[in-house]
Amino acid sequence: MEIIIGHITVMGSFVFAVSGALVALRNKLDPFGVLIVAFITAVGGGTVRDVLLADKDVFWLFDTNITYAIISGAAIAILFRNKLRFFRKPFFFYDAIGLGLFTITGVQIGIDYQLNPLICILLGTITGVFGGVLRDVVVNEIPVVFQKEIYATASILGGALYLILVFYKVPNPYLQIIPITFIIIARIVVVTYNISLPNIYKKEQ
Amino acid sequence: MEIIIGHITVMGSFVFAVSGALVALRNKLDPFGVLIVAFITAVGGGTVRDVLLADKDVFWLFDTNITYAIISGAAIAILFRNKLRFFRKPFFFYDAIGLGLFTITGVQIGIDYQLNPLICILLGTITGVFGGVLRDVVVNEIPVVFQKEIYATASILGGALYLILVFYKVPNPYLQIIPITFIIIARIVVVTYNISLPNIYKKEQ
Amino acid sequence: MEIIIGHITVMGSFVFAVSGALVALRNKLDPFGVLIVAFITAVGGGTVRDVLLADKDVFWLFDTNITYAIISGAAIAILFRNKLRFFRKPFFFYDAIGLGLFTITGVQIGIDYQLNPLICILLGTITGVFGGVLRDVVVNEIPVVFQKEIYATASILGGALYLILVFYKVPNPYLQIIPITFIIIARIVVVTYNISLPNIYKKEQ
Repeated sequence: MEIIIGHITVMGSFVFAVSGALVALRNKLDPFGVLIVAFITAVGGGTVRDVLLADKDVFWLFDTNITYAIISGAAIAILFRNKLRFFRKPFFFYDAIGLGLFTITGVQIGIDYQLNPLICILLGTITGVFGGVLRDVVVNEIPVVFQKEIYATASILGGALYLILVFYKVPNPYLQIIPITFIIIARIVVVTYNISLPNIYKKEQ
Repeated sequence: MEIIIGHITVMGSFVFAVSGALVALRNKLDPFGVLIVAFITAVGGGTVRDVLLADKDVFWLFDTNITYAIISGAAIAILFRNKLRFFRKPFFFYDAIGLGLFTITGVQIGIDYQLNPLICILLGTITGVFGGVLRDVVVNEIPVVFQKEIYATASILGGALYLILVFYKVPNPYLQIIPITFIIIARIVVVTYNISLPNIYKKEQ
Repeated sequence: MEIIIGHITVMGSFVFAVSGALVALRNKLDPFGVLIVAFITAVGGGTVRDVLLADKDVFWLFDTNITYAIISGAAIAILFRNKLRFFRKPFFFYDAIGLGLFTITGVQIGIDYQLNPLICILLGTITGVFGGVLRDVVVNEIPVVFQKEIYATASILGGALYLILVFYKVPNPYLQIIPITFIIIARIVVVTYNISLPNIYKKEQ
């Protein structure tokens, strides 16, 4: 299971790197700028999570495959940037996978540290969402997460679902596959049907 | 004393959460965006402080009351946002309390780590001020602290005052009440009389 | 050698502080804002690097000379801001020195932690470059590094050169002087001849 998660983390880093590189390209950054925004997007969430825990080294310091995956993701985005409108759908799909997986790893680390369930879910959401927040801050945009889409809500609900399954001692493959699948499907449904959180600014916006 | 400080920290987190939520609402973020900006504002300063110290866990990881206080603060800001012009004055008052208290806890932690007095004051100011800096960065504004008001100056002077009282071994309740009260009053005086640091840009601005 | 590096770190902090203060003054921040942007610029890169490593205290917590150097740099920038166009050239020169030195210290710390060479170079670049990134984020500009200049590329190549020299056991003074000099000269050549990374946006920009 560890090995599978390791693999998917690398895959998640790859797709988040593509997502970051796309935003960087839209903002006309130079190739190095594209690479670093890709890096920040891919590792941002997990880095903030690991930094919050005093005795935990940041995950990508000791797994070079993650850096290779990010460099590949950024390079592919630069090379195929004109064909990306075509590739958009599948990338969105992998991005949702990344959100699902990164959320669950964050919650699991909270459980390992015996934190309060609420804080576990918070760590999961930070892991899943904060890469995108840093990406947007760095290119000087208000983070997308804060505005239109229920990106974080899927992460929060999926994290809570994972905690419930842990509580009921659901066995190992299902334990993680169910909430990850939930987050991915929730994300796809939300985007497909253009669902958003209730607008609390009547008319104005 | 520990218990009192614990209580006021929760209270400080609550009022900073309201302040963060107000800025988020002004920027038309969705409810989750409001919540996360409230969270960043409330815990940002203390989190940066704790992260700088290698062996210190971030304070809110192990005290769930802080998260509850933040969720309450954000919820109240959303519900009563139209009446907030009315509530502005008292909130400003609690915000000053938060600045006072958070500054002192930061200086105290610097003392606990036997850091140089200058660095202790710096840690105090980071604790008191950085939540607001992160709040403004995240919603893409130049941090207020850097611009108009002597927000940080009150924190720096109050931190220095606390160090002096510690040096002269002032006993416990006064030790913390005096500099906290100083910061609160300094803050209120500055806002009331619209005092600002000397303008170093003659005419231009 | 340690002592020399200690001296140059303080000097590097000083010139980075001047660079940060200049950007803050351009954005009309008040004196405290200038000071804090100077501080963030000077210590930002090394702070991010140290925070990523779980058991490492942030470098400026225990060396007050760095804080004095930053305060001096900010004060000088404020006092002589009208003469700075005159001082620009030498400051640019010291800034390049800072980039060279901070990069090498970052790579060296990666080696001390026995990290993969790729990650060592990454730590070096983060140390050299991230202060400027945070400076620009804080004043709400898209980081210069991401856009026009090959700032980071000099840092990456210099870091790689340092690793090669370490691998071939080049003795101590040359070991660090060669890559630092390389970065400084690369930086000066790039700016002098206005070299930039290949533009990947044909015509558009």
